[in-house]
Amino acid sequence: MAAKKMAIIATKGALDMAYPPLILASTAAALGWEVQIFFTFYGLQLLRKDLSGIAISPIGNPAMPMPVPMPVVVSMLPGMEAMATSMMKAKMKKKGVASLTELRDLCQEAEVKFIACQMTVDLFEFDKADFIDGIEYGGAATFMKFAGETDVCLFI
Amino acid sequence: MAAKKMAIIATKGALDMAYPPLILASTAAALGWEVQIFFTFYGLQLLRKDLSGIAISPIGNPAMPMPVPMPVVVSMLPGMEAMATSMMKAKMKKKGVASLTELRDLCQEAEVKFIACQMTVDLFEFDKADFIDGIEYGGAATFMKFAGETDVCLFI
Amino acid sequence: MAAKKMAIIATKGALDMAYPPLILASTAAALGWEVQIFFTFYGLQLLRKDLSGIAISPIGNPAMPMPVPMPVVVSMLPGMEAMATSMMKAKMKKKGVASLTELRDLCQEAEVKFIACQMTVDLFEFDKADFIDGIEYGGAATFMKFAGETDVCLFI
Repeated sequence: MAAKKMAIIATKGALDMAYPPLILASTAAALGWEVQIFFTFYGLQLLRKDLSGIAISPIGNPAMPMPVPMPVVVSMLPGMEAMATSMMKAKMKKKGVASLTELRDLCQEAEVKFIACQMTVDLFEFDKADFIDGIEYGGAATFMKFAGETDVCLFI
Repeated sequence: MAAKKMAIIATKGALDMAYPPLILASTAAALGWEVQIFFTFYGLQLLRKDLSGIAISPIGNPAMPMPVPMPVVVSMLPGMEAMATSMMKAKMKKKGVASLTELRDLCQEAEVKFIACQMTVDLFEFDKADFIDGIEYGGAATFMKFAGETDVCLFI
Repeated sequence: MAAKKMAIIATKGALDMAYPPLILASTAAALGWEVQIFFTFYGLQLLRKDLSGIAISPIGNPAMPMPVPMPVVVSMLPGMEAMATSMMKAKMKKKGVASLTELRDLCQEAEVKFIACQMTVDLFEFDKADFIDGIEYGGAATFMKFAGETDVCLFI
């Protein structure tokens, strides 16, 4: 039986939505699937060598479990984004959740193919020197050809 | 002909994005499809017995049709999130749109399988006693095996 | 070999997330795929004749590359949403990225089928006269039947 295939289009760059592509890709790769992730729009932030800038915002997300209930105006104050981010990171560390960098390494060791969207790189003037090694640059058309052969294709 | 299969990964917990997983799942189940929903991240909020806390935020979503145009600073004022939520609920009720609870019941009656992501339950310290009956707890790996056999797999 | 098929459920209406459905649909159509887009929730904004109201919000999105770093409270000031939108549009134009209207025309020329979610049109009281020609109105059940036959189905 041929290996299952999965394609992921990763478009988000905030801390919470940065996890799903990497968790799902590493999980599928561990099951022996062939996986490709196409990083585009804000998803390109996940390819930076330094992921410490990946943050989370409590604003506009009433579903985020917060340690203390917080009116919107308070979540707006200077420093609250940094505070939410560091609280979330501390909670993940305490609970033994792998960091984004660890999950990304896992994916690369399991031969998940990382493709950076060339158009977005040009549009936002990302510096390729800021990105990790071992990634390819490509366009939507090439990626769609792979996507058309997959068992699971997700837009995240 | 074997029944079609659909897998949904439900990651959002705000009022607007709480609807699509439940609408699509109940629609597919009504067509005779086999459906599983994997609730993870903020999507776990949809498994609470009491869904009255599910809210909507007009902030950071310039595409939301509002009854009156509203500058961002106004949408920030205390009480605006509650106001947007109650306006949206009133509109849905007036238009005969089923409530989240009704749609969720429909899904369970139609044997849509609900799976709560164990890792997220642990991470956010959700209390299982707050969740409805009839759900399973599982991990991404088990869910991916089902997803690999589906006709449609959506990340919401 | 039969043509590949793709179904897209377009639920977002902000400038950034308005692009992916149209880019992916026009790309797939150019590859000879049969494509349908189901516009629902805020995604219906993309069917308006006049797309000049499509905006972007820097709020609650810490991953958006901004020309200058900006604390959350500043991104809240009156006029910042309009400023972020016009900066993004100017950058896209300078880089030769097609406008939303151009991409939408491309899709329609390539016979991508546009379906507006009748339930959302009723709920938000959209005026059909504001929408472009050449679209159909339908429900989730009809769309799901097409989705079940596709090679790729994305929720955006």
